[in-house]
Amino acid sequence: MKLRPLGDRVVIKALETEETTKGGIVLPSSAKEKPQMAEVIAVGPGGMVDGKEVKMEVKVGDKVIYSKYAGTEVKLDNEEYIIVRQSDILAVVE
Amino acid sequence: MKLRPLGDRVVIKALETEETTKGGIVLPSSAKEKPQMAEVIAVGPGGMVDGKEVKMEVKVGDKVIYSKYAGTEVKLDNEEYIIVRQSDILAVVE
Amino acid sequence: MKLRPLGDRVVIKALETEETTKGGIVLPSSAKEKPQMAEVIAVGPGGMVDGKEVKMEVKVGDKVIYSKYAGTEVKLDNEEYIIVRQSDILAVVE
Amino acid sequence: MKLRPLGDRVVIKALETEETTKGGIVLPSSAKEKPQMAEVIAVGPGGMVDGKEVKMEVKVGDKVIYSKYAGTEVKLDNEEYIIVRQSDILAVVE
Amino acid sequence: MKLRPLGDRVVIKALETEETTKGGIVLPSSAKEKPQMAEVIAVGPGGMVDGKEVKMEVKVGDKVIYSKYAGTEVKLDNEEYIIVRQSDILAVVE
Amino acid sequence: MKLRPLGDRVVIKALETEETTKGGIVLPSSAKEKPQMAEVIAVGPGGMVDGKEVKMEVKVGDKVIYSKYAGTEVKLDNEEYIIVRQSDILAVVE
Amino acid sequence: MKLRPLGDRVVIKALETEETTKGGIVLPSSAKEKPQMAEVIAVGPGGMVDGKEVKMEVKVGDKVIYSKYAGTEVKLDNEEYIIVRQSDILAVVE
Repeated sequence: MKLRPLGDRVVIKALETEETTKGGIVLPSSAKEKPQMAEVIAVGPGGMVDGKEVKMEVKVGDKVIYSKYAGTEVKLDNEEYIIVRQSDILAVVE
Repeated sequence: MKLRPLGDRVVIKALETEETTKGGIVLPSSAKEKPQMAEVIAVGPGGMVDGKEVKMEVKVGDKVIYSKYAGTEVKLDNEEYIIVRQSDILAVVE
Repeated sequence: MKLRPLGDRVVIKALETEETTKGGIVLPSSAKEKPQMAEVIAVGPGGMVDGKEVKMEVKVGDKVIYSKYAGTEVKLDNEEYIIVRQSDILAVVE
Repeated sequence: MKLRPLGDRVVIKALETEETTKGGIVLPSSAKEKPQMAEVIAVGPGGMVDGKEVKMEVKVGDKVIYSKYAGTEVKLDNEEYIIVRQSDILAVVE
Repeated sequence: MKLRPLGDRVVIKALETEETTKGGIVLPSSAKEKPQMAEVIAVGPGGMVDGKEVKMEVKVGDKVIYSKYAGTEVKLDNEEYIIVRQSDILAVVE
Repeated sequence: MKLRPLGDRVVIKALETEETTKGGIVLPSSAKEKPQMAEVIAVGPGGMVDGKEVKMEVKVGDKVIYSKYAGTEVKLDNEEYIIVRQSDILAVVE
Repeated sequence: MKLRPLGDRVVIKALETEETTKGGIVLPSSAKEKPQMAEVIAVGPGGMVDGKEVKMEVKVGDKVIYSKYAGTEVKLDNEEYIIVRQSDILAVVE
């Protein structure tokens, strides 16, 4: 099975980022908005979205920073994906 | 009886997705937004919706991921449907 | 007396839908948004509404599904009507 | 003294609608939005309102249904009026 | 000192309206939105305001009804003025 | 150091306005929105701001009335400034 | 690793601003919105953002005042950055 996102949506897969103190203690995520790194898995076609022309600027394989609380988690074939709008992607990591 | 959706609306029917732990315990759905898989039953004509041109991109029979808390549940002839806007459909599963 | 709705408004009359369990107990409506079936009684002229061109897509006599908490209840000559915007009508039942 | 409404505003005067039970007890208005009947007293010129072209569709003397909690009450020469936007008028009673 | 309002703003000065019962008791203003009468002192130039063309329709000396909780109170040379947007002026009293 | 505001922003410096009763007691500012007088220190270039053409109408040295709770306070070289959008400036005092 | 911001986004790095009383006590930040100074690290391409043409007005190396609670903190290679929209940058410090 494969996800084909609609409009300006992008399917991404979160990359693990360990948040460990120097003493080795894993910190629980705070209540604050926590950005994350993810890999782009599939990219929607863009075009007219909500009455506005959207041009897709990310491509499959890009490593991106996204706003964690945006988007929707999807589980498919035991893999977890996140579907976000391209506008929830803040930057590409190069 | 048949539902003919207006504007950019889409009639979908949820597909059961079992959420069972390895030990076989069924998990109650969390408070978090839980996306679901559904089958498209009927598609509105699109066109001008709220002053914006909308082109329908899903078709009857498509399996789609939608945002669960969007949409309205409708019971017709003992079948349960959900009527969502196309913009609440995140991706097509292929 | 007759109601002539303005703009994109539609006068509808709710059709009774009994919600009874198999044991015959009438269930109180839940807090959740409950869609309902109604018959279209009168249709506004459409045209420019809030700066957007609206074309009316329902006609008198149509049976429609509408979002219950939208609209305004009106009592006229001891009959109860609901005045909704066309955008609160989700689908036509055929 | 006379009120000349600006833009898409309409001056209306509420018509009394008695809400009495069969036993003759006057019911207090519920917390729910209660539409009312009113007579149109004066109509604004319409035209560009908030960047949108508005054409006035009601005229002096029309009996209309309006959404009660919209609008502003005005007392002038011991008469009480309500000033509403035309979009708060739901239908004309004919 | 003189106030020159910007854009679609209008400087007005509230006219006293006594709210006294027949028995002579001054009533405290209720929590409800209370419209008031005011005199227009200065009128902004209009033109492009928030991306929309606004034409000024009131002039200095007009007596107007405005929505009390809109606007900002200003004290200048011991006189109290209110600065409102023209859209907060409901009607001219003639 | 000097502040060069972007877009439709304006750097202003509040002018002291004493609020003292006749008996000489300084009154604490009420919870109500309190407009203030300020001097314009620097003016942004205007132009396209949030998709709308903005023409700057105030200039350095103008005394203006602004809405106090709008804007952001900035401390630079021990001087306190406020950065507001031009639309938060209500009037020029002449 | 390097961050390439999308659309109208800007990567900035906060500059330390000590907030110490004369007696040498470090003050905790108040609940109020606290602007800060930062250095621009990377600038997005601008262009069509949310249906509006955005022209980038800051450049790498600029010292800017930004609204602290806007933006998203990102940690990359043990350096902390903030990604903001250009509209959250209030002024350039020259």
